[in-house]
Amino acid sequence: MTATTTAIDAVAALAELAPIGADGTRGGWSRHLLDEADRDMRAWFERTASSLGLAVETDANANQWATWAPDGATGPAVATGSHLDSVPGGGPLDGPLGVVSAFAAVARLQADGHAPARPIRVANFAEEEGARFGVPCLGSQLLAGELGSDRVRALTDATGVTCAAVLEAGGIDPAGIGRDAARLADMALYLELHVEQGRQLAPLDAPVGIATSILAHGRWRVTVTGRGDHAGATELASRHDPMMVAAATVRAARGRALAAAPPTRSRATVGKLQVIPGGSNAIASEVRLWIDARAEHDADVRDLVARIVADAEAAARAEGCSVTVAEESFSARVEFDPALADRVGDALAPGFGAVPRIPTGAGHDAGVLAAHLPTAMLFVRNPDGVSHSPHEGASEADIRAGVDALTAALRALTSGDAR
Amino acid sequence: MTATTTAIDAVAALAELAPIGADGTRGGWSRHLLDEADRDMRAWFERTASSLGLAVETDANANQWATWAPDGATGPAVATGSHLDSVPGGGPLDGPLGVVSAFAAVARLQADGHAPARPIRVANFAEEEGARFGVPCLGSQLLAGELGSDRVRALTDATGVTCAAVLEAGGIDPAGIGRDAARLADMALYLELHVEQGRQLAPLDAPVGIATSILAHGRWRVTVTGRGDHAGATELASRHDPMMVAAATVRAARGRALAAAPPTRSRATVGKLQVIPGGSNAIASEVRLWIDARAEHDADVRDLVARIVADAEAAARAEGCSVTVAEESFSARVEFDPALADRVGDALAPGFGAVPRIPTGAGHDAGVLAAHLPTAMLFVRNPDGVSHSPHEGASEADIRAGVDALTAALRALTSGDAR
Repeated sequence: MTATTTAIDAVAALAELAPIGADGTRGGWSRHLLDEADRDMRAWFERTASSLGLAVETDANANQWATWAPDGATGPAVATGSHLDSVPGGGPLDGPLGVVSAFAAVARLQADGHAPARPIRVANFAEEEGARFGVPCLGSQLLAGELGSDRVRALTDATGVTCAAVLEAGGIDPAGIGRDAARLADMALYLELHVEQGRQLAPLDAPVGIATSILAHGRWRVTVTGRGDHAGATELASRHDPMMVAAATVRAARGRALAAAPPTRSRATVGKLQVIPGGSNAIASEVRLWIDARAEHDADVRDLVARIVADAEAAARAEGCSVTVAEESFSARVEFDPALADRVGDALAPGFGAVPRIPTGAGHDAGVLAAHLPTAMLFVRNPDGVSHSPHEGASEADIRAGVDALTAALRALTSGDAR
Repeated sequence: MTATTTAIDAVAALAELAPIGADGTRGGWSRHLLDEADRDMRAWFERTASSLGLAVETDANANQWATWAPDGATGPAVATGSHLDSVPGGGPLDGPLGVVSAFAAVARLQADGHAPARPIRVANFAEEEGARFGVPCLGSQLLAGELGSDRVRALTDATGVTCAAVLEAGGIDPAGIGRDAARLADMALYLELHVEQGRQLAPLDAPVGIATSILAHGRWRVTVTGRGDHAGATELASRHDPMMVAAATVRAARGRALAAAPPTRSRATVGKLQVIPGGSNAIASEVRLWIDARAEHDADVRDLVARIVADAEAAARAEGCSVTVAEESFSARVEFDPALADRVGDALAPGFGAVPRIPTGAGHDAGVLAAHLPTAMLFVRNPDGVSHSPHEGASEADIRAGVDALTAALRALTSGDAR
């Protein structure tokens, strides 16, 4: 082993990514599966991996991988990374921070002359946010065999383009997507670093935390059908306005989540809503809205959604409208591997002392993989907890502390003793 | 005068227009100021006018005119017509029916050897629905000097393109828009035929009605600003979700209109609502919605809107959001010219008996022009009253009856006796 001369500063790398997919309409960044911004992010992934001498490949499910396997690194890899796509108008860190930090950590280990006993593999998982096709963690779920390939190929984006067509245009054979047992078996564990989404580390003297669990969560698409008509010429008594039902559903989501136990761990949100036809002087004919619901346990989520839907149906009956509900995704509660969390905590102890263990309400590829191999997550402190927003942030010092932590963890997890 | 050989069947002409601007996403038709569909409609207007030997011109405000001025037709014209643009996903008749019927009536008069004492002028008013730039009756309001030209030039569509740029690309000099006194003075009266928007003629044995008045009405854009955040990681208690305020505003619009007196003549509708960023797993940072409010008198509308806005502001305070309101348009109550309505009624009596006189809640170019010259409207029966929807319709028999009525009215209004 000789140390490379490439060093990667995570703060500088994030600044390099800032122009890609900047959203002039919404603010923040919009990078969705294999669109121009996502392709630019992927090109950056390839360039950066190559600059570190890593072998780069794109798997059958559109996930990117960069592997450092110097002499002496054998067996299944220690995998790390995150995703490079975003929500519409998202922040700069979710998930590029995890990918940037992974490359920075590898560069640091190379510079330090670390000789890993296992390959270290950096991942960029495809369509983690599900912003284009409605299904979050699309790449990791496909890899893990948790989605039907036919269903995924038939998914359509907002413009009606199928996922199959988007994959094909991006150089991925749509016929080849699905469970990738060999790739799963070639990972010893997965450790994902991510900006915290929430406010648990902010009041603590702790730049990083270790994840314990993810709330059960899912997405439901609610379609309310009424009767389109003229806003000026139609008496109130003869309307069947789906917007009234949508408004009741938005309120029901908040009310039913507040009434759930424990309310601090139950959440329901309508963040996406489309009005058809959407003219200011036209009563809508249809409104589509999405309920994002989360709670401590799987049954809690289903109960919460059932109550919201019952309220929506009651409102539809009162207005003479109809409601249909489709589950777009469901992610069971995740408990991260306690033994792996302990190993990561031990690795961090010299530099960080006792690292807080915290739960999260946000889904992650690490949560998907947790059912298939040991997984862990590191969270980097977020001063006001905001995420899925252009205002998401972390201090430069905390970003660099995150790289320090990930470097220490990867070093320990790939030491000879760790075999 | 020699009769031409061109006959125009209104039902067939509407069928010819059906492919133009068909909206595969929303259903119905989307034809907005100088977009491809609108340009195709305008080309049809030119071809049809030319086939009847009419002189075609586009005025400084993007309105089209086709004039039949045979020998003996002198002085200001009797104008008729409507508009060829639509709401997003609108129906087939609002307002092509008025333009098609006007051409069909002129063709009939020509075939009958009618010698008009005044020119007959067919109008296609620009952007009547205001779907692209938010201001309804844009062309007629500009012509009548009721909009500031600077304000109109600066209007932007949903993609940020200015009205000035759209006009220029369409061959209209944006510097030249505004009051057109000469054109106003060259119209003796304006008679617009339109499909009924409402259910007043449906229960009667009457294929056509004559308008008496238009409700006062306007559009207000409400912008609710909150704090974008992660839908899964943000506790309910720390949210500032503008969607909650939007839902309260939708309900307030209905509730305040129902509580207004008389409730049957007060209406408030939210038919257009945009969520930013609009991700299903992101709490919105901003929601924009439009209130369409109408009532018997101008003060009733302003009072209704003030109550809705007060409710929105109260909801915003409760959620920790803020609200701004902008008036996009206001149209005072219109009383159509009673003397002209009587003349139209007299002209229709031989064929239609006593024609019902009915008010409407829908705005029209005829309402704008009513402040400047005598105007009247003919409504064609709409079996279920639906409009601003693909399901808008009228029977073929009623469409042809509308042409009969318009022909009779134009014949009477341009007879030598009418001078």
